Amino acid sequence: MFPFTHRHLLGIANLSEHDIAFLLDKADEAVHISRQRHKKTSTLKGLTQINLFFEPSTRTQSSFELAGKRLGADVMNMSVASSSVSKGETLVDTAMTLNAMRPDILVVRHGSAGAAALLAQKVACSVINAGDGAHEHPTQALLDALTIRRARGRIARLVVTICGDILHSRVARSNILLLNAMGARVRVVAPATLLPTGIERMGVEVFDRLEDGLADADVVMMLRLQRERMAGAFVPSVREYFQRFGLDARRLKAAKPDALVMHPGPMNRGVEIASEVADGPSSVIEEQVEMGVAVRMAVMEALALPQNAEATP
Amino acid sequence: MFPFTHRHLLGIANLSEHDIAFLLDKADEAVHISRQRHKKTSTLKGLTQINLFFEPSTRTQSSFELAGKRLGADVMNMSVASSSVSKGETLVDTAMTLNAMRPDILVVRHGSAGAAALLAQKVACSVINAGDGAHEHPTQALLDALTIRRARGRIARLVVTICGDILHSRVARSNILLLNAMGARVRVVAPATLLPTGIERMGVEVFDRLEDGLADADVVMMLRLQRERMAGAFVPSVREYFQRFGLDARRLKAAKPDALVMHPGPMNRGVEIASEVADGPSSVIEEQVEMGVAVRMAVMEALALPQNAEATP
Amino acid sequence: MFPFTHRHLLGIANLSEHDIAFLLDKADEAVHISRQRHKKTSTLKGLTQINLFFEPSTRTQSSFELAGKRLGADVMNMSVASSSVSKGETLVDTAMTLNAMRPDILVVRHGSAGAAALLAQKVACSVINAGDGAHEHPTQALLDALTIRRARGRIARLVVTICGDILHSRVARSNILLLNAMGARVRVVAPATLLPTGIERMGVEVFDRLEDGLADADVVMMLRLQRERMAGAFVPSVREYFQRFGLDARRLKAAKPDALVMHPGPMNRGVEIASEVADGPSSVIEEQVEMGVAVRMAVMEALALPQNAEATP
Repeated sequence: MFPFTHRHLLGIANLSEHDIAFLLDKADEAVHISRQRHKKTSTLKGLTQINLFFEPSTRTQSSFELAGKRLGADVMNMSVASSSVSKGETLVDTAMTLNAMRPDILVVRHGSAGAAALLAQKVACSVINAGDGAHEHPTQALLDALTIRRARGRIARLVVTICGDILHSRVARSNILLLNAMGARVRVVAPATLLPTGIERMGVEVFDRLEDGLADADVVMMLRLQRERMAGAFVPSVREYFQRFGLDARRLKAAKPDALVMHPGPMNRGVEIASEVADGPSSVIEEQVEMGVAVRMAVMEALALPQNAEATP
Repeated sequence: MFPFTHRHLLGIANLSEHDIAFLLDKADEAVHISRQRHKKTSTLKGLTQINLFFEPSTRTQSSFELAGKRLGADVMNMSVASSSVSKGETLVDTAMTLNAMRPDILVVRHGSAGAAALLAQKVACSVINAGDGAHEHPTQALLDALTIRRARGRIARLVVTICGDILHSRVARSNILLLNAMGARVRVVAPATLLPTGIERMGVEVFDRLEDGLADADVVMMLRLQRERMAGAFVPSVREYFQRFGLDARRLKAAKPDALVMHPGPMNRGVEIASEVADGPSSVIEEQVEMGVAVRMAVMEALALPQNAEATP
Repeated sequence: MFPFTHRHLLGIANLSEHDIAFLLDKADEAVHISRQRHKKTSTLKGLTQINLFFEPSTRTQSSFELAGKRLGADVMNMSVASSSVSKGETLVDTAMTLNAMRPDILVVRHGSAGAAALLAQKVACSVINAGDGAHEHPTQALLDALTIRRARGRIARLVVTICGDILHSRVARSNILLLNAMGARVRVVAPATLLPTGIERMGVEVFDRLEDGLADADVVMMLRLQRERMAGAFVPSVREYFQRFGLDARRLKAAKPDALVMHPGPMNRGVEIASEVADGPSSVIEEQVEMGVAVRMAVMEALALPQNAEATP
């Protein structure tokens, strides 16, 4: 037995292989809850979950909201536009204010790397990082892993190719950490200007031609091209990007015949992925969304275990 | 017995007279729930309702939200401003994402006619059209019918006059369909430029003078003048519009002495309706709002009947 | 016994000393609910609470939302940006619409003094004033009083110094009324241009030097400098304001050694208060936030007592 004893989920970097497997097992059970007509338990009944989003995100916030509600928690959303941050309050003051309202779980998305970890030091409740700058997005990596494991039965030894803007992507970072921890072989494909320097030290193989990176891949993860994050960096034209790094049916043939195609969403159809692939038989993009709710239920259940909630941070 | 076997509520056009009567009967029961101190049942407990509003609407969204909560559902609101649509995601991608989160009921408002029907083809849950472009707004027509039936005991053979911008009004369209299905005699009054061509084929009598259209009417429905929808069309001045088509106490005398005055809200006082009428003894405008919650409870209950939820779309 | 028989909470001016003590006693009990792991009762189960905020306020709205959810109510938030007010609907029409949806409790924040009282005349439910212009903010005064009473054991005979923009502050106004009703000795410190004329008639001592106002004070309440409210009035520079009226550790020495430092939040650090004080041992600013939830639970419970809900307004 390897008990799960974390109080916060700040990043995949903090998790062991056993922690990850524990959460995926728990998420496998949670999948069933949402597939029933009566899709609700009382696991978190009486507990308070606050979703504090400094960057808008329909998908992730909704997923956390439904996960919490289905576990019976009282869920409160706070988005930045309507928050005191616009009145000049600091991140820490916002956190201390929320903390004084005695939540049990604080889900945080913020534009700066390290924001979730900073909050975790200041508050008495569990903090879940729902994306902090270009740092980590651990529940995304967990839901991707769950999707792969359910489709292939394992993660170890699979070849997973991640393609796109690796430099600005917390999704890529968390996935590389998780996939390596679970024994997969990770490749990245990106224009040179969208690759962090020293990425090889994260234990990935780097390719600059998509066809090369896809050869015999078991899983292809396409990243969203987020031009708004590329201030000062090389901004490729949409057309040029698709020609070199977009995934279409022809290119996908380089991967294994049963390769899975994944995308964290929302997709730019015709930019990083062609509709023929996004909607094709290899795509597990919708299953990723379903697994998102299950993974978040599993994470919140695990963090709210009484022994973890009372552990020192 | 005429069982209600619909999976979606996309428009009045899809409903039979018996369907409509079934929903109104059910809504009559739901009125009592909201009038109690403990105004909550567990009919939809464990089910997930998502309100997906691409156009803002306090009134309609609130009504659906309270209806769902009073039936015990978990309700999640998603409004466009904060949604991925601003990141360029398509309507269908948004729908597929939501669908993967396994909602039971999706309430949709969208600026384009046919949006709700399109979503209904893509998702596994029940879809309720909360207004799609100039097409339909079926729960508005049902709540208007419930208001009339409760006040007059029937709908058949009543003379109902609808006045205003018929061309752009989904409220008018759904009401005309419903009132005709239930045997009322429907009249419309509008400036020629705000009348759809061929409106007579919908089974209505057309008038261009308000006094003529009101003669011996049992019910007067005033529509909101939505100048923002009139791009490229004739845009009357507010003053001119009120002089020709605004309802004041003097003009209301042309109708029957006990005629009901209705408005879907929000009202432009002094534009399409004078305050003396809106707040006068003939007005049932507030009762319309109350009936709105009841009708939406009835619709959601009916669609969520296990046999309908599992029916083929 | 002095039964609490109010149907609305519009301002401290309407409460007797006994009413205030009743609410503070009830709030003392509510504090325990939020400190438990299972922080939820069923006191308001089946009841509907609507938060109608015409001015954004993360802190106050969140506090009311959590208070309602922890009492088991169904809570619906309505903020102005997305409301029909932008379509030209009047405040009273909005209220009548909400009223027709049969809420039990309507929490209102509005930019105009008297807005809550106006609504209370129009609706059938309990109205709680969550701030109306420069008039009152009664739950803020109650939470401040609860914080003081828990720290000092009493309010009577304490010297409480309120410093800042008294002219535009509903927080100051409600606090002056409450503290006087409970027998405290209230002082105000402000630039002459930020003092209402005739403030002395409210039973306060006026100082224009902070050091003088702080001498031997038991409690120091610093107000937020709200430059956006000062249209047409004297707008001090931030630097100048801090030099004359900002609270730092050196100035705080004028107060009693165990003086409490309070702030309604959100703070402008370095404007009206230095971080060394805001985060120092005298600060009870976070406890104020916690007491906010407890006070709002107490108020809603008291107003929803069946005898009050059915009382004539």
